[in-house]
Amino acid sequence: MRITEYRRAFDIILNFAERFKVRRKERVRLDESLGRIVAEDIHAPIDIPPFDRATMDGYAVVAADTFYADEDSPAELSLLGEVRAGEFPDVRVERGTCVAISTGAPIPEGADSVVKVENAEDLCEKVRIFKSVAPSENVQRAGSDIRKGELIISEGTLLTPCRTGVLAACGINEVVVRGKPRVAIISTGDELVDPLNMGDGKNDGQKDAPLPKGKIYDVNMRTLSDAVSVCGCVPLPLGIACDDADDVLGKMEEAVRKADIIIISGSTSAGKTDIVPTIIYEHGELVLHGVDIKPGKPLAFGIFRGKPIFALPGNPTSALLSFSLFVAPLLYKCSTAAYPTQIKPAIKSTASTAAAFSTAEEGILKNRTVKARTTMRIISEKGRNEFIFVRLSVEGDMMLATPVLKGSGAITTLADADGYIFVEKGREIIEEGEQVEVFLQPALTDEVRR
Amino acid sequence: MRITEYRRAFDIILNFAERFKVRRKERVRLDESLGRIVAEDIHAPIDIPPFDRATMDGYAVVAADTFYADEDSPAELSLLGEVRAGEFPDVRVERGTCVAISTGAPIPEGADSVVKVENAEDLCEKVRIFKSVAPSENVQRAGSDIRKGELIISEGTLLTPCRTGVLAACGINEVVVRGKPRVAIISTGDELVDPLNMGDGKNDGQKDAPLPKGKIYDVNMRTLSDAVSVCGCVPLPLGIACDDADDVLGKMEEAVRKADIIIISGSTSAGKTDIVPTIIYEHGELVLHGVDIKPGKPLAFGIFRGKPIFALPGNPTSALLSFSLFVAPLLYKCSTAAYPTQIKPAIKSTASTAAAFSTAEEGILKNRTVKARTTMRIISEKGRNEFIFVRLSVEGDMMLATPVLKGSGAITTLADADGYIFVEKGREIIEEGEQVEVFLQPALTDEVRR
Repeated sequence: MRITEYRRAFDIILNFAERFKVRRKERVRLDESLGRIVAEDIHAPIDIPPFDRATMDGYAVVAADTFYADEDSPAELSLLGEVRAGEFPDVRVERGTCVAISTGAPIPEGADSVVKVENAEDLCEKVRIFKSVAPSENVQRAGSDIRKGELIISEGTLLTPCRTGVLAACGINEVVVRGKPRVAIISTGDELVDPLNMGDGKNDGQKDAPLPKGKIYDVNMRTLSDAVSVCGCVPLPLGIACDDADDVLGKMEEAVRKADIIIISGSTSAGKTDIVPTIIYEHGELVLHGVDIKPGKPLAFGIFRGKPIFALPGNPTSALLSFSLFVAPLLYKCSTAAYPTQIKPAIKSTASTAAAFSTAEEGILKNRTVKARTTMRIISEKGRNEFIFVRLSVEGDMMLATPVLKGSGAITTLADADGYIFVEKGREIIEEGEQVEVFLQPALTDEVRR
Repeated sequence: MRITEYRRAFDIILNFAERFKVRRKERVRLDESLGRIVAEDIHAPIDIPPFDRATMDGYAVVAADTFYADEDSPAELSLLGEVRAGEFPDVRVERGTCVAISTGAPIPEGADSVVKVENAEDLCEKVRIFKSVAPSENVQRAGSDIRKGELIISEGTLLTPCRTGVLAACGINEVVVRGKPRVAIISTGDELVDPLNMGDGKNDGQKDAPLPKGKIYDVNMRTLSDAVSVCGCVPLPLGIACDDADDVLGKMEEAVRKADIIIISGSTSAGKTDIVPTIIYEHGELVLHGVDIKPGKPLAFGIFRGKPIFALPGNPTSALLSFSLFVAPLLYKCSTAAYPTQIKPAIKSTASTAAAFSTAEEGILKNRTVKARTTMRIISEKGRNEFIFVRLSVEGDMMLATPVLKGSGAITTLADADGYIFVEKGREIIEEGEQVEVFLQPALTDEVRR
């Protein structure tokens, strides 16, 4: 393991984003396109509206017939019939005639404007007009909203309800969108059991799950799959590999066939079972192994059979923090190329420490922090860049940060924390009551609502 | 139509939230639970870790055997065997003996601590220990992270990747979550055609969709369904009803059977086809009809067969704005009761004008605004509370707001806008260069990424 400085590790990984950008396209139904990114410019196949429409209930007339009409000297026109929304008129309005029309109905040939119903009186075969209209008044012209052939959605646009609505208006029922990165997830460890395959793990808190002796439930498959979903990518959980090079290699080969990016957790420390970085080194390119942060030190990153692969620590808290710091930014960069809106979208990057990183692009790797005062003295290990998980509380106007004090292997650490503070290696002690910047865990806590 | 003041309308609608809160529960698989809200307290069915575990590779020993051991006078212990992660030891460590152990493996009976591998030397049947350990050193105790029976997730908690991870750790593979509100959506209008049912509306911009003469594609079914999804609810698109009381009533009855909340758009103005409010009035309770805002004036709200029903204008821009102002807040209130995190989640409410409303609850109806300068003089109709859609741009340090000038029926207005400004009825003119507050359209633009 040759430790890489954390900012440099971030740069090295992000520099691969362009190479691994997912350029696959897929065609989806319009009613499944919300939130997807359009992969091709879309032009309007028809005019919107498709015909001149009345914008008011009233009478379609030739405007010239109404000139000088008022309460005292109304114009009188012959009523030819009626056209309602959804009908297509087969009459022609000549001078001296009119047609009753409802909002949204097509303007009959010959007519050029609509007199509102409240400015007219229906005398059965005749209609009295009490107010003049100008040509085009109360008429929405064909193509005035969208003209046939016009660019309506450009490549790279995020489909929002407004924009799917524009496509619906044009009768477009399928749309070509960018493929989401597919992320294979592999857990390694002889001690792991997949909780999804256990029969009776009901959440009534009463039954013991039949966990074999010496085994534990695999946590990382769940947390990493869900974190991948939060990043807008498709998780492909490939299950658990034993601490055996052939088994791990087999899963990695399967991952290469199915996914764009590979995440494998466990077996990355320097013990007897340091299998994954070795396989990456022997069968691909081990770009880095070891980063000067705690937790998360044994991170490895490389290229295996042409696909980027992350080897994360087995400890769930370390795995999820490493994901948030190094994997999520790459996922975002590989999936979203450009946002056309002038307001940068607040993409919910998990790269909450982006501010700490040199190349963090504003907007893409936006992070949210709050200032808080510590409720106790915090001692960080000397010479270590350390992340300390904290829970936030509010006291009056003040935000308070309390470290989550769990053992290093605790699964509950992240679940109990609202965010973390980052103590650079030059510092050892943060005094009680000192103001610190807390990086919230956006993608990992409150941004996942579905 | 009896016009209700907009703040009062908001209050009236939101006051129904408690009555219509969705209390249905459903059981989902753990791997489909991300982003859902837990409906019952969950207690740990097992200890985590389930057994005392080694946190280091090394030798499981009786600590007392290592006291006073150092480089010069190492302790020497008999090696009984090895236990690896995933195995369960069948040996008992007595005084004077030890067992080789890997990280994560169960501590054998009799042993109370682990000597790190780097502080020992393996002599085949003997092991030399060069450093003393204290009892419990390098051991993670059973139940130290989570104790069996402990409350691990409380009712009302949002499931994040960290929290699904805690459930996975306990072997829980199903979870009881709150049901999402089901929202029936009905479009009305003889002129409407469902774009999803058209055969060849490909987005290659070349083919004309075979739209019958006088018809237009239904936009609201798409925009409202997608907006409902953005609010974390389940849209049930029920299709198009004709401008016919029996047809509309039939769809409304279907909606009552299938959904918790009903949205119907079109046919709400005071013309010949003012069907929906009349049906609500005749078959239920018409709570309000007409609000003093533009666009969005013809909003109606009522109770039909015990279910809340919104009648929105047919114009897509007005419909979506009305949804954002009045429907979305009710959806949020009906679906989320409480957030246990101390940091209020930035729920992406569509109620962007919440600040303008009297009872807007901070946190639940949080809105995002930006300050910008107008690029042109804006004239609002006198005596009207008007929403003016604007597009934002950046010039140097300044944010600029330019009105989206499209006809009132334009479908593209909302899609082109980044947000809107609200001009209260006392004001008529906003000068060019004046600073205004722009309400962003969070749920309608950039928060829908999937």
